Amino acid sequence: MAVYTEVSDAALTAFLAAYDIGTLLSYKGIAEGVENTNYFLHTTGGTFILTLYEKRVRADDLPFFLNLMEHLAARGLACPQPIRDRAGIALGELCGKPAVIVTFLEGVSVKRPGIDHCRALGGALAGLHAAGADFGMRRANNLSVEAWEPLFHLAEPEADRVSPGLGERIAGDLAILEAGWPSGLPSGVIHADLFTDNVFFIGDDLSGLIDFYFACTDAFAYDLAICLNAWCFDADGTFHREMGAALIAGYEAVRPLTPAEVEALPILCRGAALRFLLTRLVDWLNVPPGALVQPKDPLEYDRRLTFHRSITHARDYGWGGVASA
Amino acid sequence: MAVYTEVSDAALTAFLAAYDIGTLLSYKGIAEGVENTNYFLHTTGGTFILTLYEKRVRADDLPFFLNLMEHLAARGLACPQPIRDRAGIALGELCGKPAVIVTFLEGVSVKRPGIDHCRALGGALAGLHAAGADFGMRRANNLSVEAWEPLFHLAEPEADRVSPGLGERIAGDLAILEAGWPSGLPSGVIHADLFTDNVFFIGDDLSGLIDFYFACTDAFAYDLAICLNAWCFDADGTFHREMGAALIAGYEAVRPLTPAEVEALPILCRGAALRFLLTRLVDWLNVPPGALVQPKDPLEYDRRLTFHRSITHARDYGWGGVASA
Repeated sequence: MAVYTEVSDAALTAFLAAYDIGTLLSYKGIAEGVENTNYFLHTTGGTFILTLYEKRVRADDLPFFLNLMEHLAARGLACPQPIRDRAGIALGELCGKPAVIVTFLEGVSVKRPGIDHCRALGGALAGLHAAGADFGMRRANNLSVEAWEPLFHLAEPEADRVSPGLGERIAGDLAILEAGWPSGLPSGVIHADLFTDNVFFIGDDLSGLIDFYFACTDAFAYDLAICLNAWCFDADGTFHREMGAALIAGYEAVRPLTPAEVEALPILCRGAALRFLLTRLVDWLNVPPGALVQPKDPLEYDRRLTFHRSITHARDYGWGGVASA
Repeated sequence: MAVYTEVSDAALTAFLAAYDIGTLLSYKGIAEGVENTNYFLHTTGGTFILTLYEKRVRADDLPFFLNLMEHLAARGLACPQPIRDRAGIALGELCGKPAVIVTFLEGVSVKRPGIDHCRALGGALAGLHAAGADFGMRRANNLSVEAWEPLFHLAEPEADRVSPGLGERIAGDLAILEAGWPSGLPSGVIHADLFTDNVFFIGDDLSGLIDFYFACTDAFAYDLAICLNAWCFDADGTFHREMGAALIAGYEAVRPLTPAEVEALPILCRGAALRFLLTRLVDWLNVPPGALVQPKDPLEYDRRLTFHRSITHARDYGWGGVASA
């Protein structure tokens, strides 16, 4: 949540000259996004977000992300739409960094979502999966099951310093997940990071989805599993089944899950929790001195894993409704 | 330049309920202002800045600042205008901090101002002094000459660590300034911190002034001296007399300086430079561990003082035009 690169008025004015969005009225560095520098941008042509990609985003991946946002927006999904310059190019360079201008999306992130928010999220997630169906590019999920062993390897020596027994718990989950990870599930473009920060509401209505910089090609139900983790737990690890039920029902109102997806949901949820536990743990153990960003607590996901280990059926996450468990 | 206080959607929605500015559409923490937390705020009623006052601003001073902005805006000065809630109160409380909503001002800070910017600034500064003439409140300048000795006392033991001989140079200036500081000059409301960050332009036109949190009652010409320091020097200490001439001429086109003000200008410029040298030096020597804000280089003002020590007449700052020196 920081402005890593300061853009001067002169540099921005020169950059905007290549676009057809009018002249500069105002811009403000905003504390949004952990990975990139973002500016709120107002020109005579409208309101935008200017993003400068810092080193954590691979430049090779940018065409996938930008083309995807353009594709989804063209299919009516409420998401930021990259603006092409007069030469037809969306990806520019500013202050020596890859940079892009996207449309500004109104809305507010809900810190403590309720049941209705979860239902709306489910519908939007299924809408995203449908809108991505005919997207022509692919990007492997480089944070899926094959990545967890190497991540664990980075964190293992110090894991127990974060919580006693953590290393052993992760090793146990990892063995089970690697052995039983499902394949052949319905797949396509997934968001892969649809936390509350990345979903906007105006009043009770979902107004849009942002931050597609983890998007990739993977199982749709894994995206749902990520949302169940991100939206339906308290920080103390309590799962709210009525929220899970609303999320799944909202999703299935647009795209019903297949029997294979229903069967896979528990292991997908457990895997999603391990994925965020591992990346947060590695970040936690590697905070650079003078860091502007406070790392997120990995143990939230350790507590969620305690819940996931006890689950045997998708009903326990609310599939089929709250009464069906 | 940081968001010190995170405001949740729920807290903000509750706060906005007291105001008559519509419902929330979006808000973003912005990296603007060193002292306070600022959010860009968009509601169905318009675009605003929400400011939460952090501990460096004295709560007792807030009525002065807010009433002043309201007074100046009512007299047509382009500056943020505090929004009163339905009970008629501008100063609220949010997340346990004093908080206020002000109108959003379009415009961009110019990092490297030119001659025309300086001329426009001079006119706006004189306009501010005129608009404040009938403002009923007073606030002493607590960073004027009486404050410099105590500030120097804080920094003196370590001053030479920042630059060899710095302590001795400051002591020499201080003795001269304390002995010769002028009194009885035309006085009233001054901005006292009109750096380039606090002046907005749209294209070549000055669109507004912001950040009145150092405003106080003091000599008008001292405000001009602050601007000469802040706008007309390079970081290496080179003074640009043609910029000074434009600034002073822009000012005098609205309000001509009195002979006493012209005579006092060199010592006022020297004092203004010492004021910023001292506060920057104290900040520089007291950066808390993990600080989000990079302190500003005090030595910029040490270099400016080298110039000021050589000056004997306002003409050397460009008074009377460039050719008159």
